[in-house]
Amino acid sequence: MRMVDIIAKKRNGGELTKEEINFFIEGYTKGEIPDYQASALAMAIYFQKMNMRETIDLTLAMRDSGDVLKLDKIEGIIGDKHSTGGVGDKTSLVLIPLMGACGIKMAKMSGRGLGHTGGTIDKLESFPGFSTHLSEEAFISQINDIGIAINGQTGNLTPADKKLYALRDVTATVENMSLIAASIMCKKLAAGADIIVLDVKCGSGAFMKTKKDAVALAKTMVEIGKGAGKRVRAVVSDMDQPLGYAVGNILEVMEAVDTLKGEGPADLKRLVMVLGAQILLESGYVEDVKEAERMLKYNLESGQALKKFHELIASQGGDDSFCDDPSALLKNTESYEVKADSDGYVTGIVSDKIGLASMILGGGRATKESQINLSVGLVLKVKVADQVKKGDCIGVIYSCDHAKTLEAEKMIKEAIHIGQDSVRKRKLILDIID
Amino acid sequence: MRMVDIIAKKRNGGELTKEEINFFIEGYTKGEIPDYQASALAMAIYFQKMNMRETIDLTLAMRDSGDVLKLDKIEGIIGDKHSTGGVGDKTSLVLIPLMGACGIKMAKMSGRGLGHTGGTIDKLESFPGFSTHLSEEAFISQINDIGIAINGQTGNLTPADKKLYALRDVTATVENMSLIAASIMCKKLAAGADIIVLDVKCGSGAFMKTKKDAVALAKTMVEIGKGAGKRVRAVVSDMDQPLGYAVGNILEVMEAVDTLKGEGPADLKRLVMVLGAQILLESGYVEDVKEAERMLKYNLESGQALKKFHELIASQGGDDSFCDDPSALLKNTESYEVKADSDGYVTGIVSDKIGLASMILGGGRATKESQINLSVGLVLKVKVADQVKKGDCIGVIYSCDHAKTLEAEKMIKEAIHIGQDSVRKRKLILDIID
Repeated sequence: MRMVDIIAKKRNGGELTKEEINFFIEGYTKGEIPDYQASALAMAIYFQKMNMRETIDLTLAMRDSGDVLKLDKIEGIIGDKHSTGGVGDKTSLVLIPLMGACGIKMAKMSGRGLGHTGGTIDKLESFPGFSTHLSEEAFISQINDIGIAINGQTGNLTPADKKLYALRDVTATVENMSLIAASIMCKKLAAGADIIVLDVKCGSGAFMKTKKDAVALAKTMVEIGKGAGKRVRAVVSDMDQPLGYAVGNILEVMEAVDTLKGEGPADLKRLVMVLGAQILLESGYVEDVKEAERMLKYNLESGQALKKFHELIASQGGDDSFCDDPSALLKNTESYEVKADSDGYVTGIVSDKIGLASMILGGGRATKESQINLSVGLVLKVKVADQVKKGDCIGVIYSCDHAKTLEAEKMIKEAIHIGQDSVRKRKLILDIID
Repeated sequence: MRMVDIIAKKRNGGELTKEEINFFIEGYTKGEIPDYQASALAMAIYFQKMNMRETIDLTLAMRDSGDVLKLDKIEGIIGDKHSTGGVGDKTSLVLIPLMGACGIKMAKMSGRGLGHTGGTIDKLESFPGFSTHLSEEAFISQINDIGIAINGQTGNLTPADKKLYALRDVTATVENMSLIAASIMCKKLAAGADIIVLDVKCGSGAFMKTKKDAVALAKTMVEIGKGAGKRVRAVVSDMDQPLGYAVGNILEVMEAVDTLKGEGPADLKRLVMVLGAQILLESGYVEDVKEAERMLKYNLESGQALKKFHELIASQGGDDSFCDDPSALLKNTESYEVKADSDGYVTGIVSDKIGLASMILGGGRATKESQINLSVGLVLKVKVADQVKKGDCIGVIYSCDHAKTLEAEKMIKEAIHIGQDSVRKRKLILDIID
């Protein structure tokens, strides 16, 4: 088998066999197939696409390119959740303890964030002492113990994906549904859970800009997961305004804790309910959505979810005395109110500009090496459709550098569009794929 | 400017600017742009194509990636000829001295062959002492002196093409008209002649298998050449049977000498006349094709062309006593007659199989490092449409290894199709682009 023939076959619109896909992924992982052949194939795939069979085989080959977690020592049904990423997305911080409280095991592996804020594990490191470097044994034993764990990536998971993603990023071959879906799903499959719920974000603050693309990606990923023998569902949710109000690491933890108390922003709460319901439905713990929502509501309002959050923080070595009021974690920040320049209605909030404001304040990473300041960020005071008066506070900046505060203020004002005509509230849940 | 943006632009069907094309070629030549981005761009070009403006800019950028020969110290009009390559193609050996005899300066740079036989300079090295390593000064001074020279490549010509061609070869990105045409024409433009005549071969023994593709390539190359300010014409000629009868280095020199004497195979003679006429017409030396053909015929039949061949060999240090009868150069070969297995008509001669027979005998290079045996090869005794009887000699093998002789015999018999129904002679000249 020669790589050049595989490239030519795909270039000519052919369907690659499982053997050809394995030959490529194995050879590329080992370094026997050079980057210049991999990028040519990726570009051929961009134009000729892959069918579902090829996409599943690609995902499985990438899953098997490195370690695959064996979670069979965990008793019960194991769930996992993935978000394609958006601004203000602190959903995992609420969902994981909530599902734990419902009796679903959650084995969550999470990366560090690159972009406007840190990732879930960055946010959790706000708690002094919290460790995201559990060994595989400790990870499994904690899940058996308290039902949930959130860890940084252990071992050598999906090295083919790491290599291929870095290559696609610099060769204009990112935007292909099969390659995007395979890249996400190979990691989820290698992480070993039985039930996977996917939150596919859609809009200005997300990778998928249109509902059509987001739904297509969601369907592809669900089909891959099912093809690999997993129970998978996907929710397509709006990212044309930030999720909740808070953007920035500790600020998001604060909002997550509010939500774990049964309070918190309506959209975040709704998304958690919908995602949680999908897991419960797949688990067989409930008969229907109504029952699922009742169970989720109970665990939020009774404090069971927050209790599970305490256990999570404490079990991974963190100081859980901050769990009830994480605002005490904020350090050396000035808070600064952003005021509306005119009367009117909020007609739009450009998510990625809000994310950029957080990054400028120091809340996100521009490169892998950047240090994050966990205390900075911003809390919006409005949602799309809200009415405002000139001088109203539309957001609060938390910053430790006044020049950056002013820069962020400008950006937030640009991001929040105020118009004369009222608009409808945005729909949060755009589709559910099961 | 970032290479990834250039790739994305072409991928999306955009037209690359001259600046973007120069950025790519300059960066790639210097090694600042990696192979994996170049191959992704080549694949994007394969799918989205380049328009004529882009193709011309690409060719000029590749021409300027290394040395460009300055032939302004040569007086008079300077011609050059290029063939896209075929089986039994010894045209240059006849055409260059013939044009010299007509008073056209011919500055011919030629590569070594890779495939069924050697290239023009390999064939010329059959003459003991013949040098194909003239310095640029010696090359120019010889052309001023005797009118013609045939040299191996001097200096660092078109390094971008060398790199890019090697890359395309292993990334399934060879088959794009713009990339093929730019690769050929950048070398011709860097070689500095005023008039370029292109022989685009078409058929089983050629790179272009169909007349449509061959004509398209010819038109593209002519337009590039004109865009670069040169006088360019192209002849599309048949390669669905070998040119002439001889395939193999010294055997081809023998056939070329026959033709220089005004004898030789009709098809070779015809091709030389047509190519020569194009150069003469572009030079302004003649009014029309009739006059051109008269001039060419005179120089062949009067012995002027053969005289020029003597001068060429002697001037480059070769022993020209072999020029009148190069068969004396053949060493240690047995000759072996291939006989027809049945009565009938020659309905086809698969050129590439005939080429392969020559290569098996040792007449061509499988890799750049292979040694060529200049004495081996084969001389066919038939052309398509000839009638044969069982037992007739249809070809003679010249070999120095009897096992290989038998292998070649099998291949030649497979290549020469003998059927019951008579067929028409093949048309040699398929199109002329001016």
